[in-house]
Amino acid sequence: MKALVEIFYKDSVFDPQGNTICQSLQRLGFRRVKDVRIGKVVQLELDTDGQSPADAKKDVENMCEKLLANPVIESYTLQLEGK
Amino acid sequence: MKALVEIFYKDSVFDPQGNTICQSLQRLGFRRVKDVRIGKVVQLELDTDGQSPADAKKDVENMCEKLLANPVIESYTLQLEGK
Repeated sequence: MKALVEIFYKDSVFDPQGNTICQSLQRLGFRRVKDVRIGKVVQLELDTDGQSPADAKKDVENMCEKLLANPVIESYTLQLEGK
Repeated sequence: MKALVEIFYKDSVFDPQGNTICQSLQRLGFRRVKDVRIGKVVQLELDTDGQSPADAKKDVENMCEKLLANPVIESYTLQLEGK
């Protein structure tokens, strides 16, 4: 099974990288760009033999809390794909 | 309109960050993790007044080619959301 986790800074946290890219895009002529936020995406390949999708999801949430995301300043969304 | 661009190293390119995170997760006890790839995700807020979705998509593809992704070693997928 594959899991896809998207991790962004919370909206209240300033995102300097996104800000810089927004300005660069506008300078390149893409004037329709109003705002940019940059995040990380983690694609996990999991061996879920004998594990329910609910348990797999709980596992991935645990990974996010313990290692992948910093819950103080970041929020994440996760999707499970396939079997 | 919002656009979401996911950028990963191509499969043929070694992803050291993903590798390290894979090992760290396994060391933390998540033994079901088989492989990890890390990518970037760029969330763009676009002003698409008077622009067709097809043109907006072409714009975002241009941004990817010119600034967001390195087409030599990275591949990207994009989704447009909302109006």
